[in-house]
Amino acid sequence: MGIAEESLARHGEWGGKIEVTPKMAIADGHDLAIAYTPGVAEPCRAIAADPERAYDYTLKRSTVAVVTDGSAVLGLGNIGPLAALPVMEGKAALFKAFGGVDAFPLCLDTQDVDEIVETCIRLAPAFGGINLEDIAAPRCFEIEERLNDALDIPVFHDDQHGTAIVVLSGVINALRLTGRDAATCRVVVNGAGSAGIAIAKLLVSYGFSHVALCDVRGILSSAYEGMNDAQRAMLAVTNLEDAQGTLADAMAGADVVIGVSAPGVISAAMVASMAPDPIVFAMANPTPEIFPDEARAAGARVVGTGRSDFPNQVNNVIAFPGIFRGALEARAERITEEMKLAAAEALAALVSDEELSEDRVMPDPFDPRVADAVAGAVRERALAARGR
Amino acid sequence: MGIAEESLARHGEWGGKIEVTPKMAIADGHDLAIAYTPGVAEPCRAIAADPERAYDYTLKRSTVAVVTDGSAVLGLGNIGPLAALPVMEGKAALFKAFGGVDAFPLCLDTQDVDEIVETCIRLAPAFGGINLEDIAAPRCFEIEERLNDALDIPVFHDDQHGTAIVVLSGVINALRLTGRDAATCRVVVNGAGSAGIAIAKLLVSYGFSHVALCDVRGILSSAYEGMNDAQRAMLAVTNLEDAQGTLADAMAGADVVIGVSAPGVISAAMVASMAPDPIVFAMANPTPEIFPDEARAAGARVVGTGRSDFPNQVNNVIAFPGIFRGALEARAERITEEMKLAAAEALAALVSDEELSEDRVMPDPFDPRVADAVAGAVRERALAARGR
Repeated sequence: MGIAEESLARHGEWGGKIEVTPKMAIADGHDLAIAYTPGVAEPCRAIAADPERAYDYTLKRSTVAVVTDGSAVLGLGNIGPLAALPVMEGKAALFKAFGGVDAFPLCLDTQDVDEIVETCIRLAPAFGGINLEDIAAPRCFEIEERLNDALDIPVFHDDQHGTAIVVLSGVINALRLTGRDAATCRVVVNGAGSAGIAIAKLLVSYGFSHVALCDVRGILSSAYEGMNDAQRAMLAVTNLEDAQGTLADAMAGADVVIGVSAPGVISAAMVASMAPDPIVFAMANPTPEIFPDEARAAGARVVGTGRSDFPNQVNNVIAFPGIFRGALEARAERITEEMKLAAAEALAALVSDEELSEDRVMPDPFDPRVADAVAGAVRERALAARGR
Repeated sequence: MGIAEESLARHGEWGGKIEVTPKMAIADGHDLAIAYTPGVAEPCRAIAADPERAYDYTLKRSTVAVVTDGSAVLGLGNIGPLAALPVMEGKAALFKAFGGVDAFPLCLDTQDVDEIVETCIRLAPAFGGINLEDIAAPRCFEIEERLNDALDIPVFHDDQHGTAIVVLSGVINALRLTGRDAATCRVVVNGAGSAGIAIAKLLVSYGFSHVALCDVRGILSSAYEGMNDAQRAMLAVTNLEDAQGTLADAMAGADVVIGVSAPGVISAAMVASMAPDPIVFAMANPTPEIFPDEARAAGARVVGTGRSDFPNQVNNVIAFPGIFRGALEARAERITEEMKLAAAEALAALVSDEELSEDRVMPDPFDPRVADAVAGAVRERALAARGR
């Protein structure tokens, strides 16, 4: 039985991948009086008097909404909120299994930016954070920004920032392995959607000075027509020399290429044209921009993909559970750029000098230290920013 | 330590009364591939092709949203959505503990009818039902009606219908004990808010022909000024003789009085004025309309309250978990009047002839047969209505 058939069968057995369970026994009248009426009136009164106490007495302390509009689900596209539910349940399951974070899926029956924003604002009181998931670009940018401005809980679009953090951690270690410096490295990011833009931004924040962002039509530059606002804003920090041309032009002489684009769009010749010991992250799923064997044969030193059956899998599960746990523990109001950088550095540091190799630039998702390391880094940054 | 202090302390230890837990182990890459990517794409595709499959592959099968606007919370009033959260978490905990139903609290930061309705509609795809909770009258009527019209999942305001079902089950058994017939019985319901109206409606549906609904100003009649729409509609089925007067007037000669009103508003003299062997449900919380000892001394044969420290507690927990479980199992689109009646009858039937007494007209909440009996009755009615 293949993965698809096995998954369908198991989903049928599970009938829902998560369940909502009480933390306490409710076995007699006393239990009921403490957990429910009349005792429950007391924490209600305490929160009515001081809303901050919700973090002491309720699930707001540990709970994240996983919100989608079903518009950009996996490689399946715009399948709508109901069909997106298995993914959102899976995400919630991973939040708990990997980070001890309680998460609940909310699949919204609207794809209108204003409606998504106002719905999330109305839902926010009882949540400690919002993880936006599988929402199409460019609407995802506006939704995240408006929610972060409106709310005092962190709002984080994992497809953007989770991916960017994990990619950066791999790039940091690939640089460490090949003895390169971020400031002088030339990086090409192919794919100018939500993930590509977030990756390029985080690379710049980390200290990369030479990042070019490409799309199917080539390098984003002053000459590139039809960019959306988010793409246009990237010209201020990427492609500062205003180079023009194709992906192949951009990759010639580059040190790192990061694909979040489409199957097969990177050729062996393009990899061969890169600087010595090039680094290739080819994350189109399930078929990468170039397969690892071919990239290696063309000279690539480090190759990562989105797949678990090749080395160096870029897997968001090493980031998002710890990021939200750290943010919740610190009661951070936002996931800042500094927290994302700290998370990427913490992930990179989990690979020791002895372990570091071409096939090992990222920690194993099942390494039990991962979520703690990420949560600790995020929490420290959050508390430091508040001067605690 | 009193209940209040103990409850506050325990809420602080719990930091949230429910948690969201995966149903499966996620211990290796294969587990991840089945529960999440890439395997999860398969149930997504199946649901995109046929939305009904969501009941096979997702939590929609077993999950209810507990929705509040925080406008009428316990006896605390309009404390808002965040302070209402401990109650909603408690409700979710009871759903699972008593009925095996997964429930998640959604505390909405709006008290506008249109906004509550549109928010619930946007959230509906991933839920199998909606339990409205602690929403003030008369807005709760419109919200429930509009949602039931708009959605193909059951929407149930527990403060109305759960209470009505449990009261009816107690009244059925009190009639059984005292040898009365519903058709000839005179019933007074004091309190014309959401619970009182729902109780009066369900009594009429059950077969009571003489029900009078009272408010602080007296009997609802053609002469009563300032009724809301829901109250006015009740004149078509209650107080058919169009009697006018006070609660005391209504109670004189009545067989049953049901209070969902305010502490102390029923006097011993009023009980003494009732028909022989009168039945008194005094459910104001925590201080009833009349205390059981006083009502008994004035001649009451059966007395019920909302409190667990007196006999015959009217406790919604014997109804709502089973009602939703039965509705979910049958995939009912509504909780109909027939299902509510079936639930009340099933509850009443759980008290055997041998057990039935003045102090035992309702089953024990911890009787393990309760949720199964209610769920079975609701499911059967739902399936029968569809001709299955």
